[in-house]
Amino acid sequence: MEPGSLPGVLGARKIELVVAYDGGGFHGWQEQPGGIRTVQGVLQDAIAKLTGVRPAARGASRTDAGVHALGQVVTFRTDATIPPEGLRRGLSALLRPDVVVMACREVSDAFDARRSKGKHYRYRVLAAPSPNPLRRRDTWWVAAPLDRAAMGQAAALLVGTHDFSAFRSSSCSQKNPVRTVTRLDLVPTGFPIHDEIHFEVEGTAFLMNMVRILVGTLVDVGRGKIRAADIPAILAGRDRHRAGKTAPPEGLTLMRVFY
Amino acid sequence: MEPGSLPGVLGARKIELVVAYDGGGFHGWQEQPGGIRTVQGVLQDAIAKLTGVRPAARGASRTDAGVHALGQVVTFRTDATIPPEGLRRGLSALLRPDVVVMACREVSDAFDARRSKGKHYRYRVLAAPSPNPLRRRDTWWVAAPLDRAAMGQAAALLVGTHDFSAFRSSSCSQKNPVRTVTRLDLVPTGFPIHDEIHFEVEGTAFLMNMVRILVGTLVDVGRGKIRAADIPAILAGRDRHRAGKTAPPEGLTLMRVFY
Repeated sequence: MEPGSLPGVLGARKIELVVAYDGGGFHGWQEQPGGIRTVQGVLQDAIAKLTGVRPAARGASRTDAGVHALGQVVTFRTDATIPPEGLRRGLSALLRPDVVVMACREVSDAFDARRSKGKHYRYRVLAAPSPNPLRRRDTWWVAAPLDRAAMGQAAALLVGTHDFSAFRSSSCSQKNPVRTVTRLDLVPTGFPIHDEIHFEVEGTAFLMNMVRILVGTLVDVGRGKIRAADIPAILAGRDRHRAGKTAPPEGLTLMRVFY
Repeated sequence: MEPGSLPGVLGARKIELVVAYDGGGFHGWQEQPGGIRTVQGVLQDAIAKLTGVRPAARGASRTDAGVHALGQVVTFRTDATIPPEGLRRGLSALLRPDVVVMACREVSDAFDARRSKGKHYRYRVLAAPSPNPLRRRDTWWVAAPLDRAAMGQAAALLVGTHDFSAFRSSSCSQKNPVRTVTRLDLVPTGFPIHDEIHFEVEGTAFLMNMVRILVGTLVDVGRGKIRAADIPAILAGRDRHRAGKTAPPEGLTLMRVFY
C-alpha cells in the first residue's frame, strides 16, 4: 500500500475518469446542499451505488451552471476491486443520458486532477438572423452580424500573460489575477454558410467566468461596441466594467485538460 | 388578383416559409387528430394566431416523428396584409425555441412546395465506444467500429436510378418504387478524432423511410453484417428484409429542398 492512502476511509485505489456532460440539466460541477442537481453530486451518487461508499470526487474544472464538458477530468478514491472498464461501463449506465464516462483508469497517488498544465475550452457562437433550433443547447445565438477581422485582432491582443482582472467575475476569489492564454482562435464553421464561430481558448489556468467574459468582449468587438485597439487599455485598467458582458453558459464546453 | 385564388376562403396571397425544427418534440410533420404535437399543427396554430385564419400548410417533406429540419419548405395561403418579414418574425416569436422560421417570401400561385427537383438530407452517426451527451438529440450513436471503406463502396452502388423497393417502409404507399439518388457521401467529422460520420444524401425524391433504411444498411455494411458486394442483389431482390434496419429518426435532418 502506498504511503498516505487510508483504506476504508479514503480508499486504497485512486481512479481517474474522463467525463462528458450536457450542462443544461445541472447547476454546475460543484456539489450543493438541498437536492440541487450538480455533476459532482450525481457522479458521487453513482459511485456510491456501484461501490457502496460515497467518495469525494475532485474535478479539474468547476464548470458553471449550464456549461458543458467533453473532457472533464475527475478523480476519486475507492476500496472497490471493480476493474477500470467495469467502473466506466457501470457509471455510464447509471449516469446516462446527460453524463457519460468516456474513459477510466487507475492512477498513482500523486496524480491531482486540479494540478493541470492547461485546459482547452470551446465556445460556440451562431451569428445569423435566425437561431438554429438544433443548436440551442450548446450555442450562443447572436442576431447581429459580427466583424470577424476586428474580433481576430482583439483576440490576438488577449493571447499571452496578462493581469486578467477586467476579465473575471466580481465574485472571483483568486488572489493572483495573472493568467496565460496560449491560444484564442476563431474558427468559422457551419452549413450551408460559415455563420458559426468556434472560439478555441487554451490557457494554463482561468479565473472565474474568464472564458465567457473573453468571448462576450470579443463579440462586443464584433458588433462594433468595443474597438480592438482598446483591448490593451481594458487589460491595463483592470476594471471588470470596461470589458464586455459575460457570454451565456450554454455556448461553453470544457474540451480537454492537459497534464 | 390571380386566377384560381379565392379570397376569404383560400387567401389571395401565397406565402413560402423556410422552417427549421428540432424534431425531438414532435410526432412528425403531418397534422394528427387528438392533440398530438406535430410541426404542421403548431405552425398552423401560429399562423392562425397571427392572421386570424387557420390555413392548410403544405410541407415539401413529410418528415417522420423525431426527424429534424433546417430547410423544410412550407406554403400557405392568407388574406392577411402582414409583410413577409413581419410574418417571419411573428411566427418565429410564437414558435420558438424548437421551431424557427428562417425565411419568408410571397410566391406566385404556381409554386408548389411538394413539386421539388430534389432534397438534401444529412444523417449523423457517431461511431465511438461512448455516446456524446451533447449530440444525443441529433446523432445516432453506434458503439461498434465501422469499416468506412466498405461503407463507401456500398454507398457508391446505391447512387443512381434504382427500384428502391428493398429500401422503403412496408407501410409505403407509393406506386412507383423507382427513385434517383444523386449523392450519397460519407463525410468524416468530429473532435478530437473523426469519429462522427455525416451521410450526405441527395435525390430527386424519396420513398417512406428510404434515407433511414439506406443509412441503416450502410451501417450494417460497416459492421460487417452485410457485404458491400451484396448491394446490387439487395436492390434487385426488392425485398425489405434483405436490407438493413431502419436507422433511428434522431440522426436525420432535412437540410434543403431544391426547386
